[in-house]
Amino acid sequence: MTLSRHTMPSNPADARELFRQGAWTERSTGICVGYTNANLCIVPKELAYDFLLFCQRNPKPCPVLEVLDTGDPIVRQLAEGADIRTDLPRYRVFIDGEPVDEPTDISKYWRDDLVTFLFGCSSTFEGALEAAGIAPRWRQGAATGSGIFATNIQTVPAGRLHGPMVVSMRPIPARQVPRAVQVTSRFPNHHGAPVHIGDPTVIGIENLSKGEWVDSPSLSPGDVPVFWACGVTPQTVAQASKPELMITHYPGHMFIGDIPSEQQAAL
Amino acid sequence: MTLSRHTMPSNPADARELFRQGAWTERSTGICVGYTNANLCIVPKELAYDFLLFCQRNPKPCPVLEVLDTGDPIVRQLAEGADIRTDLPRYRVFIDGEPVDEPTDISKYWRDDLVTFLFGCSSTFEGALEAAGIAPRWRQGAATGSGIFATNIQTVPAGRLHGPMVVSMRPIPARQVPRAVQVTSRFPNHHGAPVHIGDPTVIGIENLSKGEWVDSPSLSPGDVPVFWACGVTPQTVAQASKPELMITHYPGHMFIGDIPSEQQAAL
Repeated sequence: MTLSRHTMPSNPADARELFRQGAWTERSTGICVGYTNANLCIVPKELAYDFLLFCQRNPKPCPVLEVLDTGDPIVRQLAEGADIRTDLPRYRVFIDGEPVDEPTDISKYWRDDLVTFLFGCSSTFEGALEAAGIAPRWRQGAATGSGIFATNIQTVPAGRLHGPMVVSMRPIPARQVPRAVQVTSRFPNHHGAPVHIGDPTVIGIENLSKGEWVDSPSLSPGDVPVFWACGVTPQTVAQASKPELMITHYPGHMFIGDIPSEQQAAL
Repeated sequence: MTLSRHTMPSNPADARELFRQGAWTERSTGICVGYTNANLCIVPKELAYDFLLFCQRNPKPCPVLEVLDTGDPIVRQLAEGADIRTDLPRYRVFIDGEPVDEPTDISKYWRDDLVTFLFGCSSTFEGALEAAGIAPRWRQGAATGSGIFATNIQTVPAGRLHGPMVVSMRPIPARQVPRAVQVTSRFPNHHGAPVHIGDPTVIGIENLSKGEWVDSPSLSPGDVPVFWACGVTPQTVAQASKPELMITHYPGHMFIGDIPSEQQAAL
């Protein structure tokens, strides 16, 4: 059977199994909606303090959910026993700030000094948006998920790390924008309320139809583009700061944990 | 003029000036109500990653607000220009886990490798509790603030750090307990909702009238003891984990920042 987004399993463990086998290497958006999604960043221990401090100073793009012990690739809290080296659909590997590989398995890059950070993802609140009556039209068409854009918003530097913030964009009908703010405010560990609503040029985005890493959803008449801080931010930070090694998920290709999203809500 | 809690300035900068002069060395609770209070923990850089990871894994007792750069004693965000070595009423110094000093100035202990962590404090939401109609009866009498107790709740270990959680206790009339939960939930970076309501023996507190570090408020008929995670927790962690050096505020003797508490509220 050919896998399609609509026939993918709704259980996170089964979905991760398919990611692990390399049977699904496309965007994870729209798969297992209603479960905790996480962004990934792996750095050498030597850089781990700077990175954790960067997250503390930039909680909107980088709200930390779980940090694995040095050298340990096995997730404990978000999905007991998941292997961070294989259980995502696709990764990116940065060496000296350059993206050098986009593998579906990072086992060959693993080292005993690597520290894995998992942090919140706006895909976690997609089920809550739907439940509140906001149709996920951004998942229709080629995009299959939110748009992802670098901005001119600078993060707060920490140690050797600095760079611009990345945002996700969802087209929301104007009358539903306040509701979208309310719903996503309940998920502060998954980027929370939007960072910007409306005119994309204010935050340095010139062309909304052209996402850098993934296809971008189109706006319908009456839609307002709404922008949330995004966990792809460490990837632009890698390019700006040029650490020796950083491994991340590929944008839109997230880790899916076993915890229902509502258990991650603040209220 | 003899200083009293009632004649202390209501402006944080003026209060810090009196702390810096050594003119006020008692509890800071009830002073500058409505401004951000912060707990303090200073460790050598060598332990800073473990401590920041400990905070990430224990966000209820240790919600990080600001981390100063290594060796820098000057606060930037919570109160621009405040000196962390002098601007609290009283400190505690732990060497190899033993509390060896309770000075009102830590200048003589300062080193170029020290990293300062400021994290949230339940005193920050005292103004919000009052505004919601919950009278701060815990500040009446000898206690002048909440009770502070070690518990049998174990924190999540991180690296070399482990130990029991500390809580603050406020007596709340039974009918107002749900309201107290609602109000404090709005301040997740200041310990948020309570960790326990009612019977203190469930969390290992045998004698509610006897606080370990400060006088404890008494309960009136109909009061329920309500317990919030407390930023004194690193001090019990120091005693359990025995790091070479840790410097903290003395329980109840907090850093008072310039930011109004409502600016720290999530909603």
